[in-house]
Amino acid sequence: MKTRCYLDWNATAPLRPEARDAMVAAMDIVGNPSSVHGEGRAAKALLERARAQVATAFGADGADIVFTSGATEAAALALEGRGLACAGTEHDAVSAWCEESLAVSADGAVQVAQPSQSAMQLANSETGIIQSLPEGLAVSDMTQAFGKIPVAFNWSGCDMALISAHKLGGPKGIGALVLRRGLDVAARIKGGGQEMGRRSGTENLIGIAGFGAAAEAAQRDLADGIWERVEKLRNILEKALESSAQDIIFVGKSAERLPNTSNIVVPGWRGETQVMQMDLAGYAISAGSACSSGKVKASRVLRAMGFDETAAGCAIRVSIGPETTEEEVLRFAETWLAQYHKHKARAA
Amino acid sequence: MKTRCYLDWNATAPLRPEARDAMVAAMDIVGNPSSVHGEGRAAKALLERARAQVATAFGADGADIVFTSGATEAAALALEGRGLACAGTEHDAVSAWCEESLAVSADGAVQVAQPSQSAMQLANSETGIIQSLPEGLAVSDMTQAFGKIPVAFNWSGCDMALISAHKLGGPKGIGALVLRRGLDVAARIKGGGQEMGRRSGTENLIGIAGFGAAAEAAQRDLADGIWERVEKLRNILEKALESSAQDIIFVGKSAERLPNTSNIVVPGWRGETQVMQMDLAGYAISAGSACSSGKVKASRVLRAMGFDETAAGCAIRVSIGPETTEEEVLRFAETWLAQYHKHKARAA
Repeated sequence: MKTRCYLDWNATAPLRPEARDAMVAAMDIVGNPSSVHGEGRAAKALLERARAQVATAFGADGADIVFTSGATEAAALALEGRGLACAGTEHDAVSAWCEESLAVSADGAVQVAQPSQSAMQLANSETGIIQSLPEGLAVSDMTQAFGKIPVAFNWSGCDMALISAHKLGGPKGIGALVLRRGLDVAARIKGGGQEMGRRSGTENLIGIAGFGAAAEAAQRDLADGIWERVEKLRNILEKALESSAQDIIFVGKSAERLPNTSNIVVPGWRGETQVMQMDLAGYAISAGSACSSGKVKASRVLRAMGFDETAAGCAIRVSIGPETTEEEVLRFAETWLAQYHKHKARAA
Repeated sequence: MKTRCYLDWNATAPLRPEARDAMVAAMDIVGNPSSVHGEGRAAKALLERARAQVATAFGADGADIVFTSGATEAAALALEGRGLACAGTEHDAVSAWCEESLAVSADGAVQVAQPSQSAMQLANSETGIIQSLPEGLAVSDMTQAFGKIPVAFNWSGCDMALISAHKLGGPKGIGALVLRRGLDVAARIKGGGQEMGRRSGTENLIGIAGFGAAAEAAQRDLADGIWERVEKLRNILEKALESSAQDIIFVGKSAERLPNTSNIVVPGWRGETQVMQMDLAGYAISAGSACSSGKVKASRVLRAMGFDETAAGCAIRVSIGPETTEEEVLRFAETWLAQYHKHKARAA
């Protein structure tokens, strides 16, 4: 079997060893956190320990962390029925509840007119473009940013933020809505009254333990400068690609971007085709965001930035992580360029 | 440290070794099930394998299994906005969306007038009382029954059912809405369009793998007659208790009950007090359902069955499982009876 090379960290990151250990340990906790006996109290203590870990890593001490089944559920909890404005570059989970009325510049910057009536992501999953958030923003999707760049909710000026464990090395299927203390949301899942009445249902204790441990480890990686090394690798990759591909476009390169993300457009070479070719060659990359990559259609994000339908259908996303090596990045560039030149020869 | 004795299986069951193994194995699956590359397809294959395991164990081959974060979310998905009728004995997660208009007899039997406009549980979490479901029932909460008695969705005559992993030895925080093929529900969590558009959000892959393995193992236990042994133990327990406590009431004893559940009322001896006393002595039991046991109030379920406020405040639930031993059950009876006689001496 060929060695695979995983370059799709924005779709989901490999599980961190710290998260794995915390999850395996949590498997021995028998109780239901809502039970008052010793076993229940032990489960509750684990739950609250993980909540504190997430709060500290997210710079949200004193804010309310409402655990949900992921950022998508957190988005519904924060946004349903509010009619907030957003840009066309938001994730489907956000735009499903908003009016896409905010303008996006060619370099991906979103213009917010009324922060208190708007939702805006901190970083885009497809391009990595980072927004500067206006003071008093109602809701920010910080899913892609949390764990890759320093983020502190309490200093962000946002009322609410959405986060997810699996983007930073925790398990899939657990996330949170973070609220400035004093704010509230109406529960959408009702019943036992867990999560201070905001989100009922027996808690995903093993997943939450993994989220806490992953958030703590991600924060430590950031402090250790790991993501500066990732950024260097991403830049090595882009330099290698553009050295031999004249018409390559790195979307958002002039803007502030996540350190690990490269969104690549070669006009006329379909992203879906590239994903399949690179998959056969052993590389996992994506065309657009993972949620919609089953569907063969042009990137909504690039369309919102002004790319035409054809160009927006020719984007791939390469997103690397702390485990990615320089050898892998250079090997990918070599393989991709070989395909690129074949494509050019066919098109000529 | 004292050896603890866990007698609260209806609140949550210990994780089965098969579920643990499946979850640990799933931790090595890197991809997002929505990604089209090899890593994504491997994740998708695991997801669908677990879905098939749950479908087979639940007698629901050919039905649609929509994975949710638990039965509570499944209840919201099945019930919101439909105004179905239910009885006062339903779990809070169901009654939150229904009108409590169905009559309950003294032995817990629910009278359904219009099955297509009603929700009814298969088994009650506090008393274990089993209902006979009318043909054409709109929604049934089968959470407590699935894994403890033989259940086959396709033969139940129900349109939809709610199930949860952690009641049968899977992890907490994963469940499903099961739908008869051809029916549909409106998505409440929108975004990437996962679960056939009915429930968006990156799937809780590790939890789902654990659910599949636990469901399969639970089905095998049932086939092996394990729960007949559990029932014998429950009956030994009740016999031991009533031999020395004249005024003890086993709620629902004349009805068909889950094999593991004993709901015990001693008029005048508060359930909360008993839970604390038994916890100190090393036994985990509950007063009412886990979700509401943080709150000191009378059991809604017993009130709906016609018990007065005082008696309904004097109930405890002992729920055992396949790991429970006869020695544990007899030791519990001895400890409980000692407390019982102290209570009687104080009250005299």
